[in-house]
Amino acid sequence: MNDDIFEDPEGSREEILAATYRALHEHGYSDLTIQRIGDQFDKSTSLLYYHYENKDELVLETLEFLLDGFEAQFTTNEITEPREHLETFVERMCNSSAEQAHLETLLELRARAIHDERYQRHFNRSDRVFETHLADVIEAGIDAGEFRDVDPDAVATALVMFFNGIVLRRSTDDSDAWVTRATSEIASYLEDRLYVDGD
Amino acid sequence: MNDDIFEDPEGSREEILAATYRALHEHGYSDLTIQRIGDQFDKSTSLLYYHYENKDELVLETLEFLLDGFEAQFTTNEITEPREHLETFVERMCNSSAEQAHLETLLELRARAIHDERYQRHFNRSDRVFETHLADVIEAGIDAGEFRDVDPDAVATALVMFFNGIVLRRSTDDSDAWVTRATSEIASYLEDRLYVDGD
Repeated sequence: MNDDIFEDPEGSREEILAATYRALHEHGYSDLTIQRIGDQFDKSTSLLYYHYENKDELVLETLEFLLDGFEAQFTTNEITEPREHLETFVERMCNSSAEQAHLETLLELRARAIHDERYQRHFNRSDRVFETHLADVIEAGIDAGEFRDVDPDAVATALVMFFNGIVLRRSTDDSDAWVTRATSEIASYLEDRLYVDGD
Repeated sequence: MNDDIFEDPEGSREEILAATYRALHEHGYSDLTIQRIGDQFDKSTSLLYYHYENKDELVLETLEFLLDGFEAQFTTNEITEPREHLETFVERMCNSSAEQAHLETLLELRARAIHDERYQRHFNRSDRVFETHLADVIEAGIDAGEFRDVDPDAVATALVMFFNGIVLRRSTDDSDAWVTRATSEIASYLEDRLYVDGD
């Protein structure tokens, strides 16, 4: 998705999380250190050491802050054009111009979840937040008579699976051909399965 | 998929790879050591140290051996019942009774690909082997008049994405509800998109 949320941080806490976000995407998770987060931070690095025990506390708080932002955005805005809304969402998630490094970091963090319950809880919540939003969009489309009477939760789960599948494969294969095939097939899936009027 | 290939290993090399496979699934990648592979091996552990520099050489050779086995199986057997073949394949990949530990290990290994080119090459090849096989099955179904005239490569890419998405989410969420929704939605997708006669 986007990271506009960090464009104009308010107060020290948000500045710290914005610095963590930038350092994470510059160095990846493995090479991230509190010092490197400090390099992205205008104020003294000692402030970081004072408030956070280790880099995982910083990373987890940054991930939660980002997810809270998405969730607020999802629940505040009314869904007036379900089909357009869904297509914009899918396009963003499949966007083949997303930085490879960005997706690799995401996979590194998800792999942390295997051995660290805190990451497990975060990504568990993250999948549910996206799934719930997609189900809401699909339900709005059904109510508007634009989408067929499918099970919104099942279609939402499938879409989240698609997005996760893209993250996973991107980590080993940064070629464009399969992403193009994948994107066009998601469009066909929505066309055949969801839309009442084909284009 | 299945690991029958290691049920009856032939010669020392296959015995070593079978021991690596068992140790990997017992301990996961992070906690794997050559000594722990040795514990699964009937002969002397010194044989392992003699032939292999480190655990990654053992793991990579085991992964390649398994993938060679799948590839041989895929290209040898003729596809006589495309729809049944496809459904059995999908069922195996989505099988919710697959061991959580097994899927976590797979994700650990895929995350290695971010920092290790050898794993990157392996999983790159692995995705292509499964994709090629699925495209062959879909093409056989089109030729037999059972499947619609879709782009076999695009549908195969989407299916691989689904399977990868299941692996990724399973690492953080071992509940059954979303796997059930995912599996039913893949069936609906194939029904609406692929099969000429709905059931």
